[in-house]
Amino acid sequence: MSRKKKHKASSSKLQIIPMGGLEQIGMNITAFRYEDSIIVVDCGLSFPDDDMFGIDLVIPDVTYLKENIDKVKGFVITHGHEDHIGALPYILPQVNVPVYATRLTMGIIEHKLEEHELLKSTKRKVVSFGDTIELGHFRVEFIRTNHSIVDAAALAIYSPAGTVVHTGDFKVDYTPVYGDPIDLQRFGEIGRKGVLALMCDSTNAERPGFTASEKTVGKTLDTLFEEHGNTRIIIATFASNVDRVQQIISTADRYGRKVAVEGRSMTTIIDIAQKLGCIKIPENTLIDIDELRNYAPNKTVIITTGSQGESMAALSRMANGQHRKINVNAGDTIIFSSNPIPGNEKAVTNVINELLIKGADVIFQDVHVSGHACQEDIKLIYTLVRPKYAIPVHGEYKHLIAQRSLAANLGISRKNIFLLRSGDILEMNENGAQVNGRVQTGTVLVDGLGVGDVGNVVLRERQRLAEDGIVIVVFGLDRESGRLSSAPSILSRGFVYVKEADELIDDATDLVLDEVTEALDRGTTDWNKLKSLVKDVLSDFIWRKTKRRPMILPIIMDTRS
Amino acid sequence: MSRKKKHKASSSKLQIIPMGGLEQIGMNITAFRYEDSIIVVDCGLSFPDDDMFGIDLVIPDVTYLKENIDKVKGFVITHGHEDHIGALPYILPQVNVPVYATRLTMGIIEHKLEEHELLKSTKRKVVSFGDTIELGHFRVEFIRTNHSIVDAAALAIYSPAGTVVHTGDFKVDYTPVYGDPIDLQRFGEIGRKGVLALMCDSTNAERPGFTASEKTVGKTLDTLFEEHGNTRIIIATFASNVDRVQQIISTADRYGRKVAVEGRSMTTIIDIAQKLGCIKIPENTLIDIDELRNYAPNKTVIITTGSQGESMAALSRMANGQHRKINVNAGDTIIFSSNPIPGNEKAVTNVINELLIKGADVIFQDVHVSGHACQEDIKLIYTLVRPKYAIPVHGEYKHLIAQRSLAANLGISRKNIFLLRSGDILEMNENGAQVNGRVQTGTVLVDGLGVGDVGNVVLRERQRLAEDGIVIVVFGLDRESGRLSSAPSILSRGFVYVKEADELIDDATDLVLDEVTEALDRGTTDWNKLKSLVKDVLSDFIWRKTKRRPMILPIIMDTRS
Repeated sequence: MSRKKKHKASSSKLQIIPMGGLEQIGMNITAFRYEDSIIVVDCGLSFPDDDMFGIDLVIPDVTYLKENIDKVKGFVITHGHEDHIGALPYILPQVNVPVYATRLTMGIIEHKLEEHELLKSTKRKVVSFGDTIELGHFRVEFIRTNHSIVDAAALAIYSPAGTVVHTGDFKVDYTPVYGDPIDLQRFGEIGRKGVLALMCDSTNAERPGFTASEKTVGKTLDTLFEEHGNTRIIIATFASNVDRVQQIISTADRYGRKVAVEGRSMTTIIDIAQKLGCIKIPENTLIDIDELRNYAPNKTVIITTGSQGESMAALSRMANGQHRKINVNAGDTIIFSSNPIPGNEKAVTNVINELLIKGADVIFQDVHVSGHACQEDIKLIYTLVRPKYAIPVHGEYKHLIAQRSLAANLGISRKNIFLLRSGDILEMNENGAQVNGRVQTGTVLVDGLGVGDVGNVVLRERQRLAEDGIVIVVFGLDRESGRLSSAPSILSRGFVYVKEADELIDDATDLVLDEVTEALDRGTTDWNKLKSLVKDVLSDFIWRKTKRRPMILPIIMDTRS
Repeated sequence: MSRKKKHKASSSKLQIIPMGGLEQIGMNITAFRYEDSIIVVDCGLSFPDDDMFGIDLVIPDVTYLKENIDKVKGFVITHGHEDHIGALPYILPQVNVPVYATRLTMGIIEHKLEEHELLKSTKRKVVSFGDTIELGHFRVEFIRTNHSIVDAAALAIYSPAGTVVHTGDFKVDYTPVYGDPIDLQRFGEIGRKGVLALMCDSTNAERPGFTASEKTVGKTLDTLFEEHGNTRIIIATFASNVDRVQQIISTADRYGRKVAVEGRSMTTIIDIAQKLGCIKIPENTLIDIDELRNYAPNKTVIITTGSQGESMAALSRMANGQHRKINVNAGDTIIFSSNPIPGNEKAVTNVINELLIKGADVIFQDVHVSGHACQEDIKLIYTLVRPKYAIPVHGEYKHLIAQRSLAANLGISRKNIFLLRSGDILEMNENGAQVNGRVQTGTVLVDGLGVGDVGNVVLRERQRLAEDGIVIVVFGLDRESGRLSSAPSILSRGFVYVKEADELIDDATDLVLDEVTEALDRGTTDWNKLKSLVKDVLSDFIWRKTKRRPMILPIIMDTRS
């Protein structure tokens, strides 16, 4: 009752428009619109699928924001992971609005903006937990949560149509390493006042139970340092997991070991965290990698990137003997303080096997906890917030479905649970909610300096080239006489090892020569026709001989041009 | 004591030479040599790594066998999985010796040989469990085991230097669906007589406990059919798991459902198994896929390939709406009776998400059991066989290491446990064992009809092409005058979307024109020099403008040739 009264002045609806993050884990970005005010929560990237050859990053299509640029009040960022901030340097030049974030989150964003020379042109405001910012018709409050990065925030988004609670990525950690536990009291308070919708992290919605505290990893590390007192220890983890790095450094210090940090992203984050006071490094603990030789191996720890088996990361280079400074051998203990992200399983296993072959002792299980809420934690948040509508976010479809089951079991009516797709416009107020229309969304591929210049056509060409290579046939024509001026010659790349395929190439060349000569004799003057003729005949020939379909590229040179 | 006496007449050593299967799961092939007799256990393929673009299959390098062809007595095959038989059609033409296998194994091999027109030229002998074949100095006994395919065998390989027991791929199933449990008595008997070495499956050596019986899946299926009585059921599983297919068909029959089979490999194996009596299909249960429309959905089951998310398999096509005959929708229950093979996790998840988005109910956990022995089963076999030497086989290095720990815990001295690499020659008799030399091994890539014609050069070209595409610059030169006869023109594939990169291409073309003209003015006559000049300048320009490194291919056409 009281809810309805409170908002009865307002007849407009709140629109929630996810522009990514619902088809996959990654590329989180959601617009909230009320009348002429739009705010955007997060602006993340995703990493390319295996078949997106050569693509470095994938960012969201923000046409909707560009078209409504006069209404966009700002980016409100929940935490400093790539899938929540990574697209900012690419989007801000097009949608230049202020960025709001907590301290470490902003530290990481600023580092990115600096690299892209966007620091000066971007308005930024660091927000403390409990603070509320005004953005047009919206007020947004930052609520402390726990996650696998320090300073993660949930958001209470107050609009005239009602309040939305967005958890960001979160876990419930009663004993976090840095800072305080998630502000459950505030979730409860806001819930008590009435919440229209809850947008809750679905990543671990399939997993029963509670997510273990980050501190449990500290205990495991302690045991491992105790057991491996006689060897060098190399630990791979996520660069952004400042708490994890903190625990590794503290444990090393306790066991009288010096710590060297390897991997550019790891060094960067530690620098930022240290400047902001989010990590405390005992004096004389950190050493340069070149100083390792001054200490007995069992008095050292190396913290490194590469826990996901990334081929260019430090640990992978150590594993395959290509690291300039660190040789892994039988005297080493290597700890993966991480789990493989789905899709990376095989790459991680390959690195583990390489390290084992070098004789190292490799520990790759149970030295990690998730940063995302499991089922019981999700139920806790629902029960504190008691939303009218549930919008599971952050996950693949199967995760969203898993959260829907949880929400339904907690008594939220199925029709009030929305599994949105990117681009859906969900309109809501106290009287109802429904998907009403769509905005343009999609992905934009980043390749080197190019943003969006590689699309489906180029990708398909790369896939084709990757599969069977390219065969180029070039010949000269005299346009006046309509005769061959240079005989066809065939080159290939990625097709066959030419030195051992003389016969095939010779036969193909003869075939093209015959076909072209015959066509010219017939009086063919259309060069495009000639090209497709060559393409067809060569393609057939190659398929018959090899069962391969390389890209065929005929080039005719006009020798009178 | 008695052991030593028995073999004292022999002074030669037994050589065990793995030629694959130890760096990864796949491509199992091992030679056993005693004096002038060589036998080969299995002849498998492996599937290409992600970076082996365009490669269909990977087979072992059998140079060693070819060089010793006069000594090779035959291929002895343990079971009908691709990683144990798949290379036969490629190797037999080079190493044409008889093939020995059990009934279903031979049935599947013969189907392959027929496809490759090798049936007539290949001597084959079907061996029954308990039978022993004589191959030069060797006798080989086939022992019944259980596995995820019917008619799997372990081998007792008797040589004058001692007996080797090779488990093949196995599990211990006290209640198999088809046939008898693994012949543990025979393992015990042979062990009692004295076994020199045990080569045991390592696949699940990291997993504690016992592997569950195939029959437990039948119970699960029963429950699922009960619970989903109102919907059509589509079940994806491994084509070669005849017992699984048997259980699905039996359950369907019990619930009064008709069964349609979809996917070529599935149909093939069911045909073979049915002809050999390895599967019993109740009359009028199987229907053609086109007949499905004649039955209520909840009176039908579709068994399909694609449980690994393979993009071209039937289930994937159903998931993305490209299957010609089957549309998945909200009225369907889809069961994955399989686990993702490492490396396939993401592909499988993608298919699951697609199916969920279509509204189907997808069950993808706990409807599968492994075909490989877990730790307790492995301990059982060691304890029955009690070998002097242990040679963990079939696994990645981490699996071999896990089995080494098990063997060591069972009292086998560490120095008697050998973690071999492909190509190692392990020499042994009762008096000792050691790696003594190596043979040539490696992988041969199969692409279409080409076996071995794609090597590192071509693969690197494909990787390069995949990453950033190709830029081709072509111009004509008059050799006599040493002048340009046709101005440079630039084409690209997989690089940028040309229609939107006019300026880049125009600038690059101008640059090349300037460089070439200048070089010719300087009197450059060496065309190779001219090509590398163009390559360098273009490569630099493109890197500066785009941060990409496409393959650059300059083509000079001699217009007076």
